[in-house]
Amino acid sequence: MRPVEQTADGENQPWDEVTPEAARRLLVAAVEAFAERGYHATTTRDIAGRAGMSPAALYIHYKTKEELLHRISRIGHDKALELLTRAAESPGTASERLAEAVRAFVRWHAERHTTARVVQYELDALGDEHRAEIVQLRRQSGAAVRRILTDGVRDGEFDVQDVPGTTLAVLSLCIDVARWFNAAGRRTPDEVGALYADLVLRMVAVKPGAPTVA
Amino acid sequence: MRPVEQTADGENQPWDEVTPEAARRLLVAAVEAFAERGYHATTTRDIAGRAGMSPAALYIHYKTKEELLHRISRIGHDKALELLTRAAESPGTASERLAEAVRAFVRWHAERHTTARVVQYELDALGDEHRAEIVQLRRQSGAAVRRILTDGVRDGEFDVQDVPGTTLAVLSLCIDVARWFNAAGRRTPDEVGALYADLVLRMVAVKPGAPTVA
Repeated sequence: MRPVEQTADGENQPWDEVTPEAARRLLVAAVEAFAERGYHATTTRDIAGRAGMSPAALYIHYKTKEELLHRISRIGHDKALELLTRAAESPGTASERLAEAVRAFVRWHAERHTTARVVQYELDALGDEHRAEIVQLRRQSGAAVRRILTDGVRDGEFDVQDVPGTTLAVLSLCIDVARWFNAAGRRTPDEVGALYADLVLRMVAVKPGAPTVA
Repeated sequence: MRPVEQTADGENQPWDEVTPEAARRLLVAAVEAFAERGYHATTTRDIAGRAGMSPAALYIHYKTKEELLHRISRIGHDKALELLTRAAESPGTASERLAEAVRAFVRWHAERHTTARVVQYELDALGDEHRAEIVQLRRQSGAAVRRILTDGVRDGEFDVQDVPGTTLAVLSLCIDVARWFNAAGRRTPDEVGALYADLVLRMVAVKPGAPTVA
């Protein structure tokens, strides 16, 4: 069993926003169970058992298994949007803002890789209404990155032929960190973030000899 | 239900190497079921049912559900290694070989995205011995890309500070195509391959003003 991740010191503990404590405990148990066996192979009984509670106690807090998944997905997507929006709206050049967006987004997917896998890979299991809500949040996250790229092109800092495609690639590169990141591996979340920020800045850099904006 | 992907005209049909036909039909059914509900939520009875066969008929070809997953994973990883090795060993400059590796690897993850999701996301469900075998194939795939990067640095074509990290990022970017690719979407597998080859060449390009190898 993978332990649920802890964020670095100084940050809020994960799921702090979920109250009361019993509801939080159930959510943490659901993340573990979904990540380990998949959403469809997990029962509410499994989740209650992991949390040391009865199925009846679970139903006080969550009416369905899908409600648990939606809560996890919503919190994860809100956090992603918050990180990317903060980077997009921060002062500084487009390069600085893009590097910060990549560092923050990578760090989240590395530190919270178990949660991130559930958030990123179980979208199809959401009910129609919930999926539509989450798709909307994902669009907003994409728009935040697209804004940085567009600003960089406008200011002559970036040379990007295909802004939507490059936005997709940048987000995709960061998201896949959740798949391969291993807390026992050689690289820390910050090291991956720094490497990826450098690679992404190279992706969008003005090419040598390219005409610059007048 | 997602249809199992077909490769473009002129290529071998997927799973051609699996015979007899009943064994192939079961494998295709297993890919669909694992992709839709996850490995752990799928029973051999589900798989036999999808293939229009009895559970007893399944056991003639596969002793366990894990044997099916291993067969799928092995074929997928053999294919990935074949594509990347061919690119690494092809004539041409490091840039040409890297672009070809990215195009081929992206194309596979886009065209065969349902299979690729099973291959990439269900590694933990393999038995220990099978997982060790697959990890070995993944190392060889990584080594093929690393060889191209190392050659490019040696020849002064590439400027890469962290060859293992950049290798990981390149493979990761391509693999994540399986997560987001939508056959009904705006981009064809070839278009994504071309965009990604360009982005990856930018990642490794010699920076303007950087010292070149003597």
